[in-house]
Amino acid sequence: MTSEFELIRLVADQAQAKGEGVAVGIGDDAAVLSPKPGHELVAAMDTLNAGVHFFPDVDPADLGYKSLAVNLSDLAAMGSSPQWALLSVSMPRGDADWLRGFMKGFRMLADEFGVGLVGGDTCTGPLSVTVTALGWVRAGQRLLRSTAHAGDLVVVSGELGSAAYALWLRARDGAVPQNMLDALLRPLPRVGLGRRLVGNATACIDISDGLVADLGHIASASGCGAEIDLAALPATPGVQVLPRKLRLPLQLVSGDDYELCFTWPAARREDIRQLSAATGVPLSVVGRMVEQPGIICREPDGRIFEPEHTGHQHFQ
Amino acid sequence: MTSEFELIRLVADQAQAKGEGVAVGIGDDAAVLSPKPGHELVAAMDTLNAGVHFFPDVDPADLGYKSLAVNLSDLAAMGSSPQWALLSVSMPRGDADWLRGFMKGFRMLADEFGVGLVGGDTCTGPLSVTVTALGWVRAGQRLLRSTAHAGDLVVVSGELGSAAYALWLRARDGAVPQNMLDALLRPLPRVGLGRRLVGNATACIDISDGLVADLGHIASASGCGAEIDLAALPATPGVQVLPRKLRLPLQLVSGDDYELCFTWPAARREDIRQLSAATGVPLSVVGRMVEQPGIICREPDGRIFEPEHTGHQHFQ
Repeated sequence: MTSEFELIRLVADQAQAKGEGVAVGIGDDAAVLSPKPGHELVAAMDTLNAGVHFFPDVDPADLGYKSLAVNLSDLAAMGSSPQWALLSVSMPRGDADWLRGFMKGFRMLADEFGVGLVGGDTCTGPLSVTVTALGWVRAGQRLLRSTAHAGDLVVVSGELGSAAYALWLRARDGAVPQNMLDALLRPLPRVGLGRRLVGNATACIDISDGLVADLGHIASASGCGAEIDLAALPATPGVQVLPRKLRLPLQLVSGDDYELCFTWPAARREDIRQLSAATGVPLSVVGRMVEQPGIICREPDGRIFEPEHTGHQHFQ
Repeated sequence: MTSEFELIRLVADQAQAKGEGVAVGIGDDAAVLSPKPGHELVAAMDTLNAGVHFFPDVDPADLGYKSLAVNLSDLAAMGSSPQWALLSVSMPRGDADWLRGFMKGFRMLADEFGVGLVGGDTCTGPLSVTVTALGWVRAGQRLLRSTAHAGDLVVVSGELGSAAYALWLRARDGAVPQNMLDALLRPLPRVGLGRRLVGNATACIDISDGLVADLGHIASASGCGAEIDLAALPATPGVQVLPRKLRLPLQLVSGDDYELCFTWPAARREDIRQLSAATGVPLSVVGRMVEQPGIICREPDGRIFEPEHTGHQHFQ
């Protein structure tokens, strides 16, 4: 059993050395950070709880990685560049080995994007992690959910359904292919893509609650609706071969993809390919915004498909 | 049982209307906030867990208030002015009434200091609250722990031991006087005092883990030690009359006071009275910084008193 002060020291030691723009990092009552001239601050905060968002016996490094990833994904969806994070970890016991493993995963992703860990908390309690991610976006240039227009194309990055399929297999004690496991445990936030969408995409969100729910947020915030072309949903080969009845719910209504869903002017459809090439991220046009509110999923023959539920809601 | 989206809406409705400097508040992937020219950003994050930091049957309004108070106290200790907060609430069930009560307390304190709630999370899990508070301090003007000098006076605001005495009484099913209960449940962060300390105090910390532990942080960060005059410890009359054997540990090593402890040039001792008058906050000189590392508690006759433990450590 390790004391709180020692655990804080452990986290501080594992954190990046004093990063860019950090006047005061871990070790005082609060962090002091230098703003980026001409930019606005972007702040996201997400919690992951044992037994709800992850299995209690999770590899701590995977949890450390993911707790930051879900927050950087939110920053990416705003078109912003992450710079700092605050981290609060609650643990039943002060387990230094566990925390060291956690920090290894956290730091791997933090280093990838140059994110400095500047503060937070460690305390006793049921296993739970909360991260606040802070970043910058050029003043007035953030991506919103509320600015899509009827007629815009709907585009998603990467593939859909792999993380949910990994969970589905796990729940049935099936072997989980590595690429599905990576999608679940090590999603790479689409930070570079998000930055390139600024000034180009008309609206953007990250897909954490499932495509139908998250595109639904864009649609309702923008005062319109959307149609999804089921034949266009991108999937890894392992998901693509699944029976439709299993595959479509995984792709449409399960959460945890952490891809970006954005809208794009139809007149500039050709630019999407260039954007994909420039960022190295697969991009798929999966539908369009329409006047009529609501999200409709359309089969290739024009019929409407009704997914069983409309997204991952933690309180249902 | 209420859905997550409805709970987020409830929090958003209860939050301040779009506050100063808020370009994008609750309702998108992240908040977008305008920096304050000439200032640095100050960020603190604290978690409160049921059964560790509060009783599971706590009045939700008290918890809402305190979850913000402990964070604003950290900002106060840096000399900064709070402006925004992010809030993550985990609850076993989506209980809208409970959350409404929680937000009432949170908002009462947020309104007091003009703090805008700009984002966060609500999810299923054991009852737990994490707040990130964001504020501003004039560039280069923050108060630190590490800048005290041997010879400086040690000053504390308000009184010590009331919150701990309330807890002590509760644990013994005793009636708790209202002023002790307020000290425990509704501590008022010393934001105005903190701001006035900038450019005057040599170092500062908030007393959350007990005076000996927190003054110990100033001392070790500053490379010196401190002596506390036991006769000078400020207490409410209800605490002052307690037997010394009970009173001193409550004042020295119990947490939850959320007063400021700061160091002050001895040559300017007279200014402390003016500062107290200007801020309306009682200020007591309780000791002095010394060369020799460590914290010594001295009786009026010069003898050394050894408190039983050196502060509230969540992992012991």
